[in-house]
Amino acid sequence: MTPAAGETPVWTRKHLLTLRELSREEILYILDTAESFKEVSTRSIKKVPALRGRVVVNMFFEESTRTRVSFELAAQRLSADVIDFTEKMSSTQKGESLVDTARNIEAMGVDFMILRHPSAGAALDLTRAVDCCVINAGDGQHAHPTQGLLDLFTIRETKGRIEGLNVAIVGDIAHSRVARSDLQGLLKLGAKVTLVGPPTLVPAAFRQLGASVVHNLDAILPEMDVVNMLRIQKERITSSVFPSVREYVQLFGMDRARLKRCKPDVLIMHPGPVNRGIELAADVADGPSSSILRQVTNGLAVRMAVLFLCQQAASGAAA
Amino acid sequence: MTPAAGETPVWTRKHLLTLRELSREEILYILDTAESFKEVSTRSIKKVPALRGRVVVNMFFEESTRTRVSFELAAQRLSADVIDFTEKMSSTQKGESLVDTARNIEAMGVDFMILRHPSAGAALDLTRAVDCCVINAGDGQHAHPTQGLLDLFTIRETKGRIEGLNVAIVGDIAHSRVARSDLQGLLKLGAKVTLVGPPTLVPAAFRQLGASVVHNLDAILPEMDVVNMLRIQKERITSSVFPSVREYVQLFGMDRARLKRCKPDVLIMHPGPVNRGIELAADVADGPSSSILRQVTNGLAVRMAVLFLCQQAASGAAA
Amino acid sequence: MTPAAGETPVWTRKHLLTLRELSREEILYILDTAESFKEVSTRSIKKVPALRGRVVVNMFFEESTRTRVSFELAAQRLSADVIDFTEKMSSTQKGESLVDTARNIEAMGVDFMILRHPSAGAALDLTRAVDCCVINAGDGQHAHPTQGLLDLFTIRETKGRIEGLNVAIVGDIAHSRVARSDLQGLLKLGAKVTLVGPPTLVPAAFRQLGASVVHNLDAILPEMDVVNMLRIQKERITSSVFPSVREYVQLFGMDRARLKRCKPDVLIMHPGPVNRGIELAADVADGPSSSILRQVTNGLAVRMAVLFLCQQAASGAAA
Repeated sequence: MTPAAGETPVWTRKHLLTLRELSREEILYILDTAESFKEVSTRSIKKVPALRGRVVVNMFFEESTRTRVSFELAAQRLSADVIDFTEKMSSTQKGESLVDTARNIEAMGVDFMILRHPSAGAALDLTRAVDCCVINAGDGQHAHPTQGLLDLFTIRETKGRIEGLNVAIVGDIAHSRVARSDLQGLLKLGAKVTLVGPPTLVPAAFRQLGASVVHNLDAILPEMDVVNMLRIQKERITSSVFPSVREYVQLFGMDRARLKRCKPDVLIMHPGPVNRGIELAADVADGPSSSILRQVTNGLAVRMAVLFLCQQAASGAAA
Repeated sequence: MTPAAGETPVWTRKHLLTLRELSREEILYILDTAESFKEVSTRSIKKVPALRGRVVVNMFFEESTRTRVSFELAAQRLSADVIDFTEKMSSTQKGESLVDTARNIEAMGVDFMILRHPSAGAALDLTRAVDCCVINAGDGQHAHPTQGLLDLFTIRETKGRIEGLNVAIVGDIAHSRVARSDLQGLLKLGAKVTLVGPPTLVPAAFRQLGASVVHNLDAILPEMDVVNMLRIQKERITSSVFPSVREYVQLFGMDRARLKRCKPDVLIMHPGPVNRGIELAADVADGPSSSILRQVTNGLAVRMAVLFLCQQAASGAAA
Repeated sequence: MTPAAGETPVWTRKHLLTLRELSREEILYILDTAESFKEVSTRSIKKVPALRGRVVVNMFFEESTRTRVSFELAAQRLSADVIDFTEKMSSTQKGESLVDTARNIEAMGVDFMILRHPSAGAALDLTRAVDCCVINAGDGQHAHPTQGLLDLFTIRETKGRIEGLNVAIVGDIAHSRVARSDLQGLLKLGAKVTLVGPPTLVPAAFRQLGASVVHNLDAILPEMDVVNMLRIQKERITSSVFPSVREYVQLFGMDRARLKRCKPDVLIMHPGPVNRGIELAADVADGPSSSILRQVTNGLAVRMAVLFLCQQAASGAAA
């Protein structure tokens, strides 16, 4: 994976903030690297020494089981040491700002900060404050690039390609960082993206980004190769346009009846955790069209690749 | 510890759910394996590479310091990586079920789930949902098999045998998973077990399992080789039969006076943490008849043995 | 760092409780050892095998991000395994005492307990209950020896010496364990120490320890080589002598104007986390006179040295 002497390396970034800033080549390079790391997780000794002696700090100011554990396992699998820094344990309680906290942690000699934060732009702010590598693990409604990458990885693994595919993203697009990161990655790799949901949750302004915006799921289902069902915040639904969650499910939930109207090889995705019976019926979530658990597995490989490549770039820059 | 080619291995299970399902031979095999692991903990470098590159996830939906830390240390001592997954950190807050959570964690490529859960049968449910090894670290009032095993180990280490010993288990038998696991193990290995406590906490129905049921501690004390004092939930005592904790202590607490009426070499056990002055007087808890801290030490050896044997069985099954 | 055969080793303690009990030679020996460990943290593989297979338990009954993480990283960097034991996770909730908890954890075969506790003397109590090494990470208002050591290290690193320096410690001296540990260390190494703050927070009784006590910061600033600004608890200020935090800042806050009245090479220290705009103006905290982040970096080196030396002494005592 190390480029030969004289070659320009494809990957030169030590941070991962959004997919918007990455080129098509950079995204594909991460996916290719992740493929080779996916194999590591199938071994009985699931370890490679790539990041031995490096320190990865999980800074999760919003809790998320799977993302936090996925990054922790990815770092362990690369032989890094992992420190968990969750808000409750932090001196941000004493009024210390994120930047101050981060500078202090960096002064202890850490190599990576994995940041989950409720404010859009928090990861970018962090890169201006510290010299270590920063990985955005979700900042407000802005971006969740490793989720975008694992979704791309899963689509490519299943369909053999991404270019030319019809991909629907269904649900609360307006408030979703997953939707934004998926959209950016899919458009860069040549997919046609349709954003689907009620008008209040899928503003027409998204058309300017290059996606179609549609409010009738059933109308577009038969043409879709991939349908990515976003997690619904129930409070948000009932407070906006719908009198009830039940009505949302009737119009935008994926159940067996709707699945039958899809292409036979349609891929049903979900970033998890699923509200069973709401955005996905249980039998669809667990059925052969669903990639939900495979997305989780792929998330680990993608995060190993991101940690590995950013570390390489950081070491190269220092050398 | 690996059986020679052609031999049938004694241990073929990849899960540990209860002692009820184990044969006498299987229980003794765990105890023998634990003996060899106990020695590891006395070294200055307390590590063996048996589980290097394996991932153990602690899933504790009820908090318990010593059990959680004991499993974590046991896994570390076998060179495994340990991920801590406690309820507060989990997306079960978002309404995700245990099975859904577990499937997601398994998809990240973990080898062991150590489950502590308030519902009886939770560990069994888990084995139906995931392919990795499942160790029951306490499920409701149902079972706590590693506590049972460490109690057996401690008795055998002290007395040289278990068969034929008179063992009393004293306290709130009705609600205790420790009592159930101890009882199952002791009966399999040929001890005579007497369950002692007030009638509301020691239902006569336990006689059907093969134990004696007695409500007068003083009457049976002089014949006992081992007396295992269970931890008392004070709320439960006062709300059931006794006007006060003080009255419970008078009838069922182990103090110096009662200890004098025991055999000189009686072994006083307690699963911890002790309510000093209630089920055990402080001087008895810290005295030479007590095995409380040795039980903790042995718990680590027993948990190393369980992890090691289940991993071997899982690998063998895969091979 | 190991003394030659026949030599008396300088360091023979397996615990670190306060700086008061250490000799000048012992303190200097820790600082020298820390210097060699500081270099390890600058490597890409930040690991030495000195404590491989050893177990360090962080027992933090008061939360503190940087101290806890600093000890965890120090232990990892020495290749030890680290177990985190925070109050919320502990069975002290069930009414178990610190000593009982510690004995149980020790029975699992741990080598170090790092204790942060709200009661003065808690670490000393612990040494009477367990045989493993005990490091005081802050006990009430009594002592915080590794903070004292990292402050000494930072002063010596900056000024080349400690003897003869004029050092001011400014703020709530009465309630500060940092002030006590700094004072003890500085006096042992020959500095002249001036304690500064409002009379209610800097009792005259401190003169008996060998320090000057002064209530007017501006009067002594021009002679100081080092000014250590303690963190202020805002509640404490307003409830004692001052009508407002603002008035405290006017008299005792370090801002650009006050900095100009200091020696040009004055060293401004702070144990963190800083209340920006209160004890330190933001531009002073981030300016070239400030050693705040360097103190954090040095804390790691000092803690590695303490763990290493205590472990050596414990092994030597056992041998």
